[in-house]
Amino acid sequence: MKKLINSADTVLEESLDGLAAAHADILQLGADRKFVRRRNPKPGKVALISGGGSGHEPLHAGFVGHGMLDAACPGQVFTSPTPDQMIEAAEAVDTGAGVLFIVKNYEGDVMNFTMAAEMAGREVASIVTNDDVAVEKSTYTTGRRGVAGTLIVEKMVGAAAEKGMPLAALKALGDDVNRRTRSMGVALLPCTVPAAGRPNFTLADNEMEMGVGIHGEPGRRRVPLTSADAIAADMVGAILDDLAPSKGSEVLLLVNGFGATPLIELYLMVNSAKRILDGAGITATRFLTGSYVTSLDMAGASITVSVLDDQSKELWDAPVHTAALRWGM
Amino acid sequence: MKKLINSADTVLEESLDGLAAAHADILQLGADRKFVRRRNPKPGKVALISGGGSGHEPLHAGFVGHGMLDAACPGQVFTSPTPDQMIEAAEAVDTGAGVLFIVKNYEGDVMNFTMAAEMAGREVASIVTNDDVAVEKSTYTTGRRGVAGTLIVEKMVGAAAEKGMPLAALKALGDDVNRRTRSMGVALLPCTVPAAGRPNFTLADNEMEMGVGIHGEPGRRRVPLTSADAIAADMVGAILDDLAPSKGSEVLLLVNGFGATPLIELYLMVNSAKRILDGAGITATRFLTGSYVTSLDMAGASITVSVLDDQSKELWDAPVHTAALRWGM
Repeated sequence: MKKLINSADTVLEESLDGLAAAHADILQLGADRKFVRRRNPKPGKVALISGGGSGHEPLHAGFVGHGMLDAACPGQVFTSPTPDQMIEAAEAVDTGAGVLFIVKNYEGDVMNFTMAAEMAGREVASIVTNDDVAVEKSTYTTGRRGVAGTLIVEKMVGAAAEKGMPLAALKALGDDVNRRTRSMGVALLPCTVPAAGRPNFTLADNEMEMGVGIHGEPGRRRVPLTSADAIAADMVGAILDDLAPSKGSEVLLLVNGFGATPLIELYLMVNSAKRILDGAGITATRFLTGSYVTSLDMAGASITVSVLDDQSKELWDAPVHTAALRWGM
Repeated sequence: MKKLINSADTVLEESLDGLAAAHADILQLGADRKFVRRRNPKPGKVALISGGGSGHEPLHAGFVGHGMLDAACPGQVFTSPTPDQMIEAAEAVDTGAGVLFIVKNYEGDVMNFTMAAEMAGREVASIVTNDDVAVEKSTYTTGRRGVAGTLIVEKMVGAAAEKGMPLAALKALGDDVNRRTRSMGVALLPCTVPAAGRPNFTLADNEMEMGVGIHGEPGRRRVPLTSADAIAADMVGAILDDLAPSKGSEVLLLVNGFGATPLIELYLMVNSAKRILDGAGITATRFLTGSYVTSLDMAGASITVSVLDDQSKELWDAPVHTAALRWGM
């Protein structure tokens, strides 16, 4: 294992301290680093809280700030945070308008966020994201996995919350964005969890895992490595089959790196994916390209397509000021 | 070689097409993809042009836009662009106030930019960056290498150009920022140039290259992998020895990933580096953390420290709108 760390036991706390030092204008750590919170919550605004296992940075803590999340609860690497983290985060950032949890569909996360919602002693609603079309059931998941599309839900719901939308409407909006959003990923090389010290799965020199999950979970099939165009055709094809957007739809195209894939390859995938969308009569008018929902040092990428309407375009374009996404301010 | 590509011969052009599609509001490609230009140059503003071998994305094309570069000339991977690229870029974006070339100190780049300056038939000045303290002479370099500090020069000079600073003053400013800026890097895993198909150097399972260049050039020494704290102490120590900032100085700390290093490790390095700076009585008040000056899929990171004054803080904080850096607008 080759990593820039001091000890497998302290990776998360040291990384959170670095994040807090670098972005002190935006965020601060809760007691015992149980959560990362927006420095200046907005009174009267619904508080948006997400979280999950670490190792997917910048998700979620990198999306705390104006126009996106009010708090993020980081678990240990690939391990759900605990209900006390979510309860204390809610206590810290709820200004009286209620709390909305945004949860990726993994059994541990759903169980712990559900428990926290019941125990929080305040008004809480939850959105569970499940945008991954690769498989219907997976290692840690009943139903579809929540992956990179989660950041689109966080951005759009975050923008609406900033504008004062109430809790029930935000919950409906988030569910709607999730329904309009589909993803699929491919891994070329596995990742290594620091505490394990060795790769969490193996791939032969010429193999890739098509439909991989963001913890290295198996996907649809293990096949020989092929061209970027063929990979994009496979992933976009699966997404469009499932999403079935009407011809002429406008979409947001997110090409997301898993952590060890250079940007030159991600933009090449944008080109491949866009050509396939164009061929299907679907027009990408919003783009996000980079490593936003990662799997430690896994090599590979995912493609996410989200169908846009006037409201969701306005919400996507709205100002955001977080460590990892920033525009309009 | 495991990469998301179609063919080693078309990586650059396909990636540029993806970049142009994703950021059509900011930039466009020149004829034959010889350069990437700002979509709306500002009349009367000095035109800033950079460039160099590809494989360092988002450098330089990702920094084209308001408040930074007017054009970037991409060579093939790890290969200098040719003078005709720079001459045509200058023709496209010079609005009459002259052209400033920002060049990383590599022999091929310096030679070709110098030739372009002579042949351009317009007023041209040049800044050559050489912020890497690791070695005094390297595989492709006489004198020190220009590395991640280049983006700080591009940002600050870009902000000053946007405000209307004339050519001679911009040249002096850029030279000054370069003098205040030092970097050093470490590689844990090599990178693979697509056309070569195999890693461009080898490291044993327990080895790292301390002082590596951004093309995998040898650094100061090959040593056993050690802790993040020890690595940061070595790199920040070398930087401070050379930079000799006065106690109480304010600095910008850039922790830059080389392409295959996850963000969780980069923020951990921020924490390590900041502690060392604090101990030396140096205060980091500006931070940039991410993979901005990369070496394809090399694993590792560099640390850059740039001494700030009132002017450079204002220039760093000024609005910027590019594919890879965006704030204030």
